[in-house]
Amino acid sequence: MERLLVIKIGGNIIDNDEKLSLFLREFASVPGRKILVHGGGKLATKLADQLGIKQQLIDGRRITDGETLKIVTMVYAGYINKKIVAELQSLGLQTVGVCGADGNSIKAHKRVHASIDYGYVGDIDNINEPFFSNLLETDTTLVLAPITHDGNGQLLNTNADTIAQEVAKALSRSYAVQLVYSFEKNGVLLDVNNEDSVIKKINSASYKKLKEQQAIFAGMIPKLDNAFTALQSGVNKVIIGKAEELKNLIEGYAGTTIVNE
Amino acid sequence: MERLLVIKIGGNIIDNDEKLSLFLREFASVPGRKILVHGGGKLATKLADQLGIKQQLIDGRRITDGETLKIVTMVYAGYINKKIVAELQSLGLQTVGVCGADGNSIKAHKRVHASIDYGYVGDIDNINEPFFSNLLETDTTLVLAPITHDGNGQLLNTNADTIAQEVAKALSRSYAVQLVYSFEKNGVLLDVNNEDSVIKKINSASYKKLKEQQAIFAGMIPKLDNAFTALQSGVNKVIIGKAEELKNLIEGYAGTTIVNE
Repeated sequence: MERLLVIKIGGNIIDNDEKLSLFLREFASVPGRKILVHGGGKLATKLADQLGIKQQLIDGRRITDGETLKIVTMVYAGYINKKIVAELQSLGLQTVGVCGADGNSIKAHKRVHASIDYGYVGDIDNINEPFFSNLLETDTTLVLAPITHDGNGQLLNTNADTIAQEVAKALSRSYAVQLVYSFEKNGVLLDVNNEDSVIKKINSASYKKLKEQQAIFAGMIPKLDNAFTALQSGVNKVIIGKAEELKNLIEGYAGTTIVNE
Repeated sequence: MERLLVIKIGGNIIDNDEKLSLFLREFASVPGRKILVHGGGKLATKLADQLGIKQQLIDGRRITDGETLKIVTMVYAGYINKKIVAELQSLGLQTVGVCGADGNSIKAHKRVHASIDYGYVGDIDNINEPFFSNLLETDTTLVLAPITHDGNGQLLNTNADTIAQEVAKALSRSYAVQLVYSFEKNGVLLDVNNEDSVIKKINSASYKKLKEQQAIFAGMIPKLDNAFTALQSGVNKVIIGKAEELKNLIEGYAGTTIVNE
Protein backbone atom coordinates (compact mmCIF):
# COMPACT_ATOMS: atom_id res chain seq x y z
CA MET A 1 0.00 0.00 0.00
CA GLU A 2 1.09 3.51 -0.73
CA ARG A 3 2.17 5.72 2.13
CA LEU A 4 -0.14 8.46 3.39
CA LEU A 5 0.99 11.00 5.95
CA VAL A 6 -1.65 12.46 8.25
CA ILE A 7 0.06 15.30 10.07
CA LYS A 8 -1.46 17.32 12.86
CA ILE A 9 0.10 20.68 13.66
CA GLY A 10 -0.60 22.39 16.92
CA GLY A 11 -1.13 25.92 18.07
CA ASN A 12 2.50 26.78 18.75
CA ILE A 13 3.22 26.54 15.01
CA ILE A 14 0.06 28.27 13.85
CA ASP A 15 0.54 31.23 16.18
CA ASN A 16 3.98 31.94 14.75
CA ASP A 17 4.12 33.06 11.08
CA GLU A 18 7.81 32.33 10.73
CA LYS A 19 7.61 28.86 12.29
CA LEU A 20 4.56 28.10 10.18
CA SER A 21 6.31 29.08 6.95
CA LEU A 22 9.35 26.97 7.82
CA PHE A 23 7.12 24.03 8.65
CA LEU A 24 5.09 24.39 5.43
CA ARG A 25 8.27 24.49 3.39
CA GLU A 26 9.39 21.22 4.98
CA PHE A 27 5.89 19.76 4.60
CA ALA A 28 5.80 20.65 0.90
CA SER A 29 9.15 18.98 0.29
CA VAL A 30 8.07 15.62 1.72
CA PRO A 31 6.99 13.48 -1.24
CA GLY A 32 3.76 11.49 -1.48
CA ARG A 33 0.18 11.76 -0.35
CA LYS A 34 -0.48 14.05 2.59
CA ILE A 35 -3.24 15.41 4.80
CA LEU A 36 -2.52 18.30 7.13
CA VAL A 37 -4.85 18.78 10.10
CA HIS A 38 -4.55 22.07 11.91
CA GLY A 39 -5.86 23.35 15.19
CA GLY A 40 -6.69 26.92 15.90
CA GLY A 41 -4.07 28.11 18.28
CA LYS A 42 -4.65 31.24 20.25
CA LEU A 43 -6.15 33.20 17.35
CA ALA A 44 -9.74 32.20 18.15
CA THR A 45 -9.33 33.17 21.80
CA LYS A 46 -7.76 36.46 20.76
CA LEU A 47 -10.63 37.28 18.39
CA ALA A 48 -13.20 36.34 21.05
CA ASP A 49 -11.43 38.69 23.48
CA GLN A 50 -11.45 41.53 20.93
CA LEU A 51 -15.17 41.00 20.39
CA GLY A 52 -15.85 40.81 24.11
CA ILE A 53 -17.18 37.24 23.90
CA LYS A 54 -16.29 35.47 27.14
CA GLN A 55 -14.72 32.06 26.67
CA GLN A 56 -15.83 29.47 29.18
CA LEU A 57 -13.53 26.56 29.91
CA ILE A 58 -14.63 23.49 31.87
CA ASP A 59 -11.89 20.99 32.70
CA GLY A 60 -9.69 22.69 30.13
CA ARG A 61 -12.28 22.27 27.37
CA ARG A 62 -13.71 25.26 25.59
CA ILE A 63 -17.48 25.52 25.76
CA THR A 64 -18.68 26.39 22.27
CA ASP A 65 -21.72 28.64 22.41
CA GLY A 66 -23.26 30.06 19.24
CA GLU A 67 -21.00 33.11 19.08
CA THR A 68 -17.89 31.02 19.77
CA LEU A 69 -18.85 28.61 16.99
CA LYS A 70 -19.00 31.56 14.57
CA ILE A 71 -15.55 32.63 15.72
CA VAL A 72 -13.90 29.21 15.42
CA THR A 73 -15.52 28.68 12.01
CA MET A 74 -14.16 32.02 10.82
CA VAL A 75 -10.69 31.53 12.29
CA TYR A 76 -10.13 27.81 11.65
CA ALA A 77 -12.01 27.19 8.37
CA GLY A 78 -11.48 30.71 7.05
CA TYR A 79 -8.34 32.54 8.07
CA ILE A 80 -5.94 29.74 9.11
CA ASN A 81 -7.09 27.19 6.53
CA LYS A 82 -6.88 29.55 3.55
CA LYS A 83 -3.61 31.08 4.68
CA ILE A 84 -2.04 27.61 4.78
CA VAL A 85 -3.57 26.64 1.42
CA ALA A 86 -2.28 29.80 -0.30
CA GLU A 87 1.18 29.25 1.14
CA LEU A 88 1.29 25.58 0.08
CA GLN A 89 0.10 26.51 -3.42
CA SER A 90 2.97 28.98 -3.66
CA LEU A 91 5.29 26.06 -2.87
CA GLY A 92 3.94 24.15 -5.86
CA LEU A 93 1.65 21.82 -3.94
CA GLN A 94 -1.86 21.34 -5.35
CA THR A 95 -3.82 21.89 -2.15
CA VAL A 96 -7.47 22.03 -1.16
CA GLY A 97 -8.59 23.22 2.25
CA VAL A 98 -11.79 21.78 3.68
CA CYS A 99 -13.70 21.35 6.90
CA GLY A 100 -15.83 18.37 7.84
CA ALA A 101 -18.94 19.83 6.22
CA ASP A 102 -17.26 20.01 2.81
CA GLY A 103 -18.02 16.87 0.85
CA ASN A 104 -19.70 15.55 3.99
CA SER A 105 -16.15 14.56 4.87
CA ILE A 106 -16.59 14.34 8.66
CA LYS A 107 -19.97 13.80 10.22
CA ALA A 108 -20.37 14.30 13.94
CA HIS A 109 -23.02 14.73 16.60
CA LYS A 110 -23.36 17.36 19.30
CA ARG A 111 -21.63 16.02 22.40
CA VAL A 112 -23.91 14.41 24.94
CA HIS A 113 -22.68 14.66 28.53
CA ALA A 114 -24.47 13.92 31.79
CA SER A 115 -23.65 17.18 33.52
CA ILE A 116 -21.78 19.54 31.16
CA ASP A 117 -23.31 21.29 28.17
CA TYR A 118 -20.36 21.65 25.83
CA GLY A 119 -22.46 23.60 23.33
CA TYR A 120 -21.61 23.13 19.67
CA VAL A 121 -18.86 20.57 20.21
CA GLY A 122 -18.97 17.59 17.88
CA ASP A 123 -17.96 13.98 18.47
CA ILE A 124 -17.16 12.16 15.25
CA ASP A 125 -19.52 9.53 13.80
CA ASN A 126 -18.13 8.97 10.34
CA ILE A 127 -15.26 9.78 7.99
CA ASN A 128 -16.17 9.89 4.29
CA GLU A 129 -13.17 7.87 3.16
CA PRO A 130 -13.93 8.06 -0.63
CA PHE A 131 -14.06 11.85 -0.47
CA PHE A 132 -10.52 11.94 0.89
CA SER A 133 -9.08 9.20 -1.30
CA ASN A 134 -10.65 10.62 -4.49
CA LEU A 135 -8.89 13.92 -3.91
CA LEU A 136 -5.64 12.26 -2.79
CA GLU A 137 -5.63 10.19 -6.00
CA THR A 138 -5.67 13.39 -8.08
CA ASP A 139 -2.40 14.33 -6.33
CA THR A 140 -4.14 16.83 -4.11
CA THR A 141 -2.93 17.59 -0.61
CA LEU A 142 -5.72 18.22 1.85
CA VAL A 143 -5.68 20.80 4.62
CA LEU A 144 -8.31 20.03 7.21
CA ALA A 145 -9.85 22.56 9.61
CA PRO A 146 -11.27 21.17 12.88
CA ILE A 147 -14.91 22.01 12.13
CA THR A 148 -17.38 19.20 11.44
CA HIS A 149 -21.14 19.07 10.81
CA ASP A 150 -24.08 16.97 11.94
CA GLY A 151 -25.73 16.45 8.55
CA ASN A 152 -28.69 18.59 9.62
CA GLY A 153 -27.07 21.89 8.81
CA GLN A 154 -25.28 22.40 12.11
CA LEU A 155 -21.54 23.07 12.14
CA LEU A 156 -19.65 21.71 15.17
CA ASN A 157 -16.30 22.39 16.80
CA THR A 158 -14.20 19.22 16.97
CA ASN A 159 -10.83 18.48 18.51
CA ALA A 160 -8.10 18.49 15.85
CA ASP A 161 -6.15 15.60 17.46
CA THR A 162 -9.27 13.44 17.28
CA ILE A 163 -9.89 14.43 13.67
CA ALA A 164 -6.34 13.46 12.72
CA GLN A 165 -6.76 10.12 14.48
CA GLU A 166 -10.12 9.27 12.93
CA VAL A 167 -9.04 10.31 9.43
CA ALA A 168 -5.87 8.23 9.82
CA LYS A 169 -7.87 5.21 10.95
CA ALA A 170 -10.43 5.48 8.13
CA LEU A 171 -7.76 5.88 5.46
CA SER A 172 -5.66 2.99 6.75
CA ARG A 173 -7.93 0.68 4.74
CA SER A 174 -6.46 2.12 1.54
CA TYR A 175 -3.05 3.47 2.55
CA ALA A 176 -0.09 2.69 4.80
CA VAL A 177 -0.85 5.58 7.13
CA GLN A 178 1.71 7.33 9.27
CA LEU A 179 0.09 9.63 11.80
CA VAL A 180 2.29 12.48 12.99
CA TYR A 181 1.38 14.58 16.02
CA SER A 182 3.46 17.69 16.34
CA PHE A 183 3.68 19.52 19.64
CA GLU A 184 6.08 21.72 21.61
CA LYS A 185 8.40 18.99 22.86
CA ASN A 186 10.99 16.85 21.13
CA GLY A 187 8.92 13.72 21.62
CA VAL A 188 7.77 11.52 24.49
CA LEU A 189 10.23 12.29 27.27
CA LEU A 190 11.45 10.04 30.06
CA ASP A 191 12.15 13.17 32.08
CA VAL A 192 9.65 15.89 31.33
CA ASN A 193 12.25 18.55 32.17
CA ASN A 194 14.92 17.13 29.89
CA GLU A 195 14.33 17.61 26.17
CA ASP A 196 17.16 15.17 25.48
CA SER A 197 15.38 12.29 27.19
CA VAL A 198 13.25 11.41 24.12
CA ILE A 199 12.10 7.81 23.99
CA LYS A 200 12.89 6.88 20.40
CA LYS A 201 10.54 3.96 20.02
CA ILE A 202 7.59 2.64 21.97
CA ASN A 203 5.70 -0.57 21.29
CA SER A 204 2.88 -2.17 23.26
CA ALA A 205 5.26 -4.15 25.46
CA SER A 206 7.54 -1.24 26.30
CA TYR A 207 4.52 1.05 26.81
CA LYS A 208 3.12 -1.37 29.38
CA LYS A 209 6.46 -1.36 31.23
CA LEU A 210 6.82 2.44 31.07
CA LYS A 211 3.35 2.83 32.51
CA GLU A 212 4.06 0.33 35.30
CA GLN A 213 7.23 2.22 36.17
CA GLN A 214 5.24 5.49 36.02
CA ALA A 215 8.06 6.70 33.78
CA ILE A 216 5.80 8.71 31.50
CA PHE A 217 4.43 12.17 32.28
CA ALA A 218 0.72 11.79 33.09
CA GLY A 219 -0.27 14.34 30.43
CA MET A 220 1.17 12.07 27.74
CA ILE A 221 -0.87 9.00 28.72
CA PRO A 222 -4.10 9.97 26.84
CA LYS A 223 -2.05 10.86 23.73
CA LEU A 224 -0.29 7.49 23.86
CA ASP A 225 -3.47 5.57 24.58
CA ASN A 226 -4.97 7.23 21.49
CA ALA A 227 -1.89 6.34 19.49
CA PHE A 228 -2.29 2.65 20.35
CA THR A 229 -6.01 2.77 19.54
CA ALA A 230 -5.06 4.17 16.11
CA LEU A 231 -2.44 1.46 15.61
CA GLN A 232 -4.91 -1.25 16.57
CA SER A 233 -7.28 0.17 13.96
CA GLY A 234 -4.79 -0.26 11.17
CA VAL A 235 -2.61 2.83 11.32
CA ASN A 236 0.96 1.87 10.52
CA LYS A 237 2.92 4.16 12.77
CA VAL A 238 2.32 7.08 15.08
CA ILE A 239 5.06 9.67 15.45
CA ILE A 240 5.16 12.37 18.12
CA GLY A 241 7.60 15.26 18.02
CA LYS A 242 8.42 18.82 17.00
CA ALA A 243 6.81 20.13 13.80
CA GLU A 244 10.03 21.99 12.94
CA GLU A 245 11.70 18.61 12.51
CA LEU A 246 9.05 17.07 10.28
CA LYS A 247 11.45 15.35 7.88
CA ASN A 248 13.52 13.88 10.69
CA LEU A 249 10.36 12.74 12.43
CA ILE A 250 9.18 10.89 9.34
CA GLU A 251 12.58 9.33 8.76
CA GLY A 252 12.87 8.27 12.38
CA TYR A 253 15.81 10.56 13.23
CA ALA A 254 13.80 12.59 15.72
CA GLY A 255 10.75 12.28 17.95
CA THR A 256 9.09 9.19 19.29
CA THR A 257 7.83 6.48 16.95
CA ILE A 258 5.03 4.33 18.28
CA VAL A 259 4.30 0.97 16.73
CA ASN A 260 2.00 -1.85 17.69
CA GLU A 261 4.40 -4.78 17.26
CA MET B 1 -23.43 19.93 -23.89
CA GLU B 2 -24.73 19.43 -20.42
CA ARG B 3 -26.21 22.39 -18.57
CA LEU B 4 -24.21 24.07 -15.80
CA LEU B 5 -25.74 26.75 -13.64
CA VAL B 6 -23.40 29.40 -12.23
CA ILE B 7 -25.45 31.33 -9.73
CA LYS B 8 -24.33 34.42 -7.87
CA ILE B 9 -26.22 35.41 -4.75
CA GLY B 10 -25.88 38.86 -3.33
CA GLY B 11 -25.75 40.39 0.09
CA ASN B 12 -29.47 40.84 0.62
CA ILE B 13 -29.89 37.05 0.69
CA ILE B 14 -26.80 36.33 2.76
CA ASP B 15 -27.69 38.88 5.41
CA ASN B 16 -31.06 37.26 6.03
CA ASP B 17 -31.02 33.71 7.49
CA GLU B 18 -34.60 32.98 6.53
CA LYS B 19 -34.25 34.22 2.95
CA LEU B 20 -30.98 32.31 2.64
CA SER B 21 -32.58 29.05 3.80
CA LEU B 22 -35.48 29.45 1.40
CA PHE B 23 -33.10 30.18 -1.44
CA LEU B 24 -30.85 27.19 -0.61
CA ARG B 25 -33.89 24.90 -0.54
CA GLU B 26 -34.84 26.09 -4.02
CA PHE B 27 -31.22 25.87 -5.17
CA ALA B 28 -30.93 22.28 -3.92
CA SER B 29 -34.08 21.24 -5.75
CA VAL B 30 -32.84 22.44 -9.15
CA PRO B 31 -31.37 19.39 -10.90
CA GLY B 32 -27.99 19.21 -12.62
CA ARG B 33 -24.53 20.66 -12.19
CA LYS B 34 -24.29 23.84 -10.16
CA ILE B 35 -21.81 26.38 -8.83
CA LEU B 36 -22.93 28.91 -6.25
CA VAL B 37 -20.87 32.09 -5.92
CA HIS B 38 -21.58 34.17 -2.85
CA GLY B 39 -20.61 37.67 -1.82
CA GLY B 40 -20.15 38.77 1.72
CA GLY B 41 -23.04 41.07 2.45
CA LYS B 42 -22.82 43.34 5.41
CA LEU B 43 -21.28 40.78 7.76
CA ALA B 44 -17.69 41.74 6.96
CA THR B 45 -18.44 45.43 7.51
CA LYS B 46 -20.19 44.58 10.78
CA LEU B 47 -17.23 42.55 12.04
CA ALA B 48 -14.80 45.30 11.02
CA ASP B 49 -16.92 47.80 12.97
CA GLN B 50 -16.94 45.55 16.04
CA LEU B 51 -13.16 45.27 15.84
CA GLY B 52 -12.75 48.99 15.31
CA ILE B 53 -11.13 48.55 11.90
CA LYS B 54 -12.09 51.51 9.74
CA GLN B 55 -13.35 50.61 6.28
CA GLN B 56 -12.21 52.92 3.53
CA LEU B 57 -14.31 53.20 0.39
CA ILE B 58 -13.10 54.93 -2.75
CA ASP B 59 -15.69 55.30 -5.54
CA GLY B 60 -17.84 52.72 -3.77
CA ARG B 61 -15.02 50.17 -3.69
CA ARG B 62 -13.73 48.79 -0.45
CA ILE B 63 -10.02 49.29 0.10
CA THR B 64 -8.64 46.00 1.41
CA ASP B 65 -5.82 46.59 3.85
CA GLY B 66 -4.16 43.70 5.70
CA GLU B 67 -6.64 43.67 8.57
CA THR B 68 -9.61 43.90 6.21
CA LEU B 69 -8.26 41.00 4.17
CA LYS B 70 -8.17 38.89 7.35
CA ILE B 71 -11.77 39.84 8.05
CA VAL B 72 -13.12 39.09 4.58
CA THR B 73 -11.21 35.79 4.50
CA MET B 74 -12.75 34.82 7.84
CA VAL B 75 -16.26 35.95 6.97
CA TYR B 76 -16.45 34.92 3.29
CA ALA B 77 -14.32 31.76 3.13
CA GLY B 78 -15.05 30.74 6.74
CA TYR B 79 -18.37 31.67 8.21
CA ILE B 80 -20.61 32.24 5.16
CA ASN B 81 -19.09 29.55 2.97
CA LYS B 82 -19.26 26.79 5.59
CA LYS B 83 -22.71 27.79 6.77
CA ILE B 84 -24.00 27.44 3.18
CA VAL B 85 -22.15 24.14 2.68
CA ALA B 86 -23.57 22.62 5.89
CA GLU B 87 -27.07 23.71 4.93
CA LEU B 88 -26.80 22.31 1.41
CA GLN B 89 -25.42 19.02 2.78
CA SER B 90 -28.47 18.80 5.04
CA LEU B 91 -30.60 19.10 1.89
CA GLY B 92 -28.88 16.07 0.41
CA LEU B 93 -26.57 17.94 -1.94
CA GLN B 94 -22.94 16.77 -2.02
CA THR B 95 -21.25 20.17 -1.65
CA VAL B 96 -17.71 21.45 -1.34
CA GLY B 97 -16.94 25.03 -0.42
CA VAL B 98 -13.76 26.58 -1.76
CA CYS B 99 -12.05 29.87 -2.37
CA GLY B 100 -9.76 30.70 -5.28
CA ALA B 101 -6.66 29.48 -3.43
CA ASP B 102 -8.10 25.97 -3.05
CA GLY B 103 -6.96 23.80 -5.90
CA ASN B 104 -5.39 26.92 -7.41
CA SER B 105 -8.91 27.42 -8.75
CA ILE B 106 -8.73 31.19 -9.31
CA LYS B 107 -5.45 32.96 -9.75
CA ALA B 108 -5.37 36.73 -9.60
CA HIS B 109 -2.95 39.62 -9.25
CA LYS B 110 -3.03 42.57 -6.90
CA ARG B 111 -4.88 45.38 -8.65
CA VAL B 112 -2.65 47.93 -10.35
CA HIS B 113 -4.13 51.42 -10.55
CA ALA B 114 -2.53 54.72 -11.50
CA SER B 115 -3.72 56.68 -8.49
CA ILE B 116 -5.62 54.44 -6.07
CA ASP B 117 -4.03 51.74 -3.91
CA TYR B 118 -6.83 49.22 -3.54
CA GLY B 119 -4.74 47.11 -1.20
CA TYR B 120 -5.27 43.35 -1.34
CA VAL B 121 -7.83 43.43 -4.14
CA GLY B 122 -7.32 40.83 -6.84
CA ASP B 123 -8.07 40.98 -10.56
CA ILE B 124 -8.48 37.55 -12.10
CA ASP B 125 -5.81 36.06 -14.37
CA ASN B 126 -6.88 32.47 -14.68
CA ILE B 127 -9.63 29.98 -13.86
CA ASN B 128 -8.47 26.39 -13.32
CA GLU B 129 -11.19 24.83 -15.43
CA PRO B 130 -10.19 21.16 -14.81
CA PHE B 131 -10.39 21.69 -11.04
CA PHE B 132 -14.02 22.77 -11.33
CA SER B 133 -15.06 20.22 -13.95
CA ASN B 134 -13.38 17.31 -12.10
CA LEU B 135 -15.45 18.06 -9.02
CA LEU B 136 -18.63 18.74 -11.01
CA GLU B 137 -18.22 15.37 -12.74
CA THR B 138 -18.30 13.62 -9.35
CA ASP B 139 -21.77 15.18 -8.84
CA THR B 140 -20.38 17.75 -6.45
CA THR B 141 -21.91 21.19 -6.14
CA LEU B 142 -19.36 23.92 -5.55
CA VAL B 143 -19.81 26.91 -3.28
CA LEU B 144 -17.32 29.62 -4.12
CA ALA B 145 -16.17 32.37 -1.74
CA PRO B 146 -14.87 35.59 -3.34
CA ILE B 147 -11.29 35.22 -2.17
CA THR B 148 -8.53 34.47 -4.70
CA HIS B 149 -4.75 34.14 -4.50
CA ASP B 150 -1.74 35.29 -6.48
CA GLY B 151 0.18 32.03 -6.53
CA ASN B 152 2.86 33.53 -4.31
CA GLY B 153 1.05 32.91 -1.06
CA GLN B 154 -1.01 36.09 -1.01
CA LEU B 155 -4.78 35.87 -0.62
CA LEU B 156 -6.77 38.58 -2.43
CA ASN B 157 -10.26 40.01 -2.15
CA THR B 158 -12.10 39.70 -5.47
CA ASN B 159 -15.52 40.89 -6.61
CA ALA B 160 -18.03 38.02 -6.55
CA ASP B 161 -19.86 39.19 -9.72
CA THR B 162 -16.57 39.06 -11.61
CA ILE B 163 -15.76 35.62 -10.21
CA ALA B 164 -19.15 34.31 -11.35
CA GLN B 165 -18.58 35.76 -14.80
CA GLU B 166 -15.05 34.42 -15.23
CA VAL B 167 -15.95 30.96 -13.94
CA ALA B 168 -18.97 30.89 -16.27
CA LYS B 169 -16.80 31.89 -19.23
CA ALA B 170 -14.10 29.33 -18.49
CA LEU B 171 -16.57 26.50 -18.03
CA SER B 172 -18.52 27.33 -21.18
CA ARG B 173 -15.93 25.31 -23.10
CA SER B 174 -17.29 22.15 -21.47
CA TYR B 175 -20.86 23.02 -20.48
CA ALA B 176 -23.90 24.93 -21.69
CA VAL B 177 -23.54 27.58 -18.99
CA GLN B 178 -26.39 29.65 -17.66
CA LEU B 179 -25.15 32.51 -15.51
CA VAL B 180 -27.66 33.78 -12.98
CA TYR B 181 -27.16 37.06 -11.12
CA SER B 182 -29.52 37.51 -8.24
CA PHE B 183 -30.09 40.95 -6.79
CA GLU B 184 -32.82 42.92 -4.99
CA LYS B 185 -34.97 43.74 -7.98
CA ASN B 186 -37.24 41.59 -10.13
CA GLY B 187 -34.98 41.96 -13.14
CA VAL B 188 -33.82 44.67 -15.52
CA LEU B 189 -36.54 47.31 -15.23
CA LEU B 190 -37.76 49.77 -17.84
CA ASP B 191 -38.87 52.02 -15.00
CA VAL B 192 -36.54 51.72 -12.03
CA ASN B 193 -39.41 52.61 -9.67
CA ASN B 194 -41.78 50.02 -11.06
CA GLU B 195 -40.98 46.41 -10.15
CA ASP B 196 -43.53 45.26 -12.71
CA SER B 197 -41.66 46.82 -15.63
CA VAL B 198 -39.26 43.88 -16.01
CA ILE B 199 -37.81 43.50 -19.49
CA LYS B 200 -38.24 39.77 -20.09
CA LYS B 201 -35.65 39.30 -22.78
CA ILE B 202 -32.74 41.34 -24.06
CA ASN B 203 -30.55 40.50 -27.04
CA SER B 204 -27.77 42.53 -28.63
CA ALA B 205 -30.14 44.35 -31.00
CA SER B 206 -32.70 45.28 -28.35
CA TYR B 207 -29.93 46.25 -25.93
CA LYS B 208 -28.52 48.67 -28.48
CA LYS B 209 -31.95 50.25 -28.88
CA LEU B 210 -32.61 50.42 -25.15
CA LYS B 211 -29.27 52.17 -24.64
CA GLU B 212 -29.98 54.64 -27.47
CA GLN B 213 -33.34 55.44 -25.92
CA GLN B 214 -31.64 55.76 -22.53
CA ALA B 215 -34.38 53.44 -21.30
CA ILE B 216 -32.14 51.54 -18.88
CA PHE B 217 -31.11 52.75 -15.44
CA ALA B 218 -27.45 53.80 -15.63
CA GLY B 219 -26.51 51.50 -12.77
CA MET B 220 -27.55 48.49 -14.83
CA ILE B 221 -25.34 49.32 -17.82
CA PRO B 222 -22.10 47.81 -16.44
CA LYS B 223 -23.98 44.65 -15.37
CA LEU B 224 -25.46 44.30 -18.85
CA ASP B 225 -22.20 45.09 -20.59
CA ASN B 226 -20.61 42.31 -18.53
CA ALA B 227 -23.47 39.99 -19.44
CA PHE B 228 -22.82 40.52 -23.15
CA THR B 229 -19.09 40.02 -22.65
CA ALA B 230 -19.89 36.68 -21.01
CA LEU B 231 -22.24 35.72 -23.85
CA GLN B 232 -19.63 36.62 -26.45
CA SER B 233 -17.18 34.35 -24.58
CA GLY B 234 -19.44 31.33 -24.90
CA VAL B 235 -21.87 31.60 -22.01
CA ASN B 236 -25.29 30.43 -23.17
CA LYS B 237 -27.58 32.73 -21.26
CA VAL B 238 -27.39 35.34 -18.54
CA ILE B 239 -30.34 35.73 -16.22
CA ILE B 240 -30.86 38.64 -13.83
CA GLY B 241 -33.54 38.62 -11.15
CA LYS B 242 -34.57 37.88 -7.57
CA ALA B 243 -32.87 34.96 -5.83
CA GLU B 244 -36.14 34.04 -4.14
CA GLU B 245 -37.50 33.14 -7.56
CA LEU B 246 -34.58 30.99 -8.66
CA LYS B 247 -36.65 28.26 -10.31
CA ASN B 248 -38.78 30.73 -12.22
CA LEU B 249 -35.66 32.61 -13.28
CA ILE B 250 -34.11 29.47 -14.72
CA GLU B 251 -37.31 28.46 -16.47
CA GLY B 252 -37.79 31.95 -17.93
CA TYR B 253 -40.94 32.76 -15.94
CA ALA B 254 -39.30 35.58 -14.02
CA GLY B 255 -36.41 38.00 -14.33
CA THR B 256 -34.57 39.18 -17.40
CA THR B 257 -32.95 36.71 -19.76
CA ILE B 258 -30.09 38.04 -21.81
CA VAL B 259 -28.97 36.23 -24.93
CA ASN B 260 -26.51 37.11 -27.65
CA GLU B 261 -28.60 36.21 -30.71
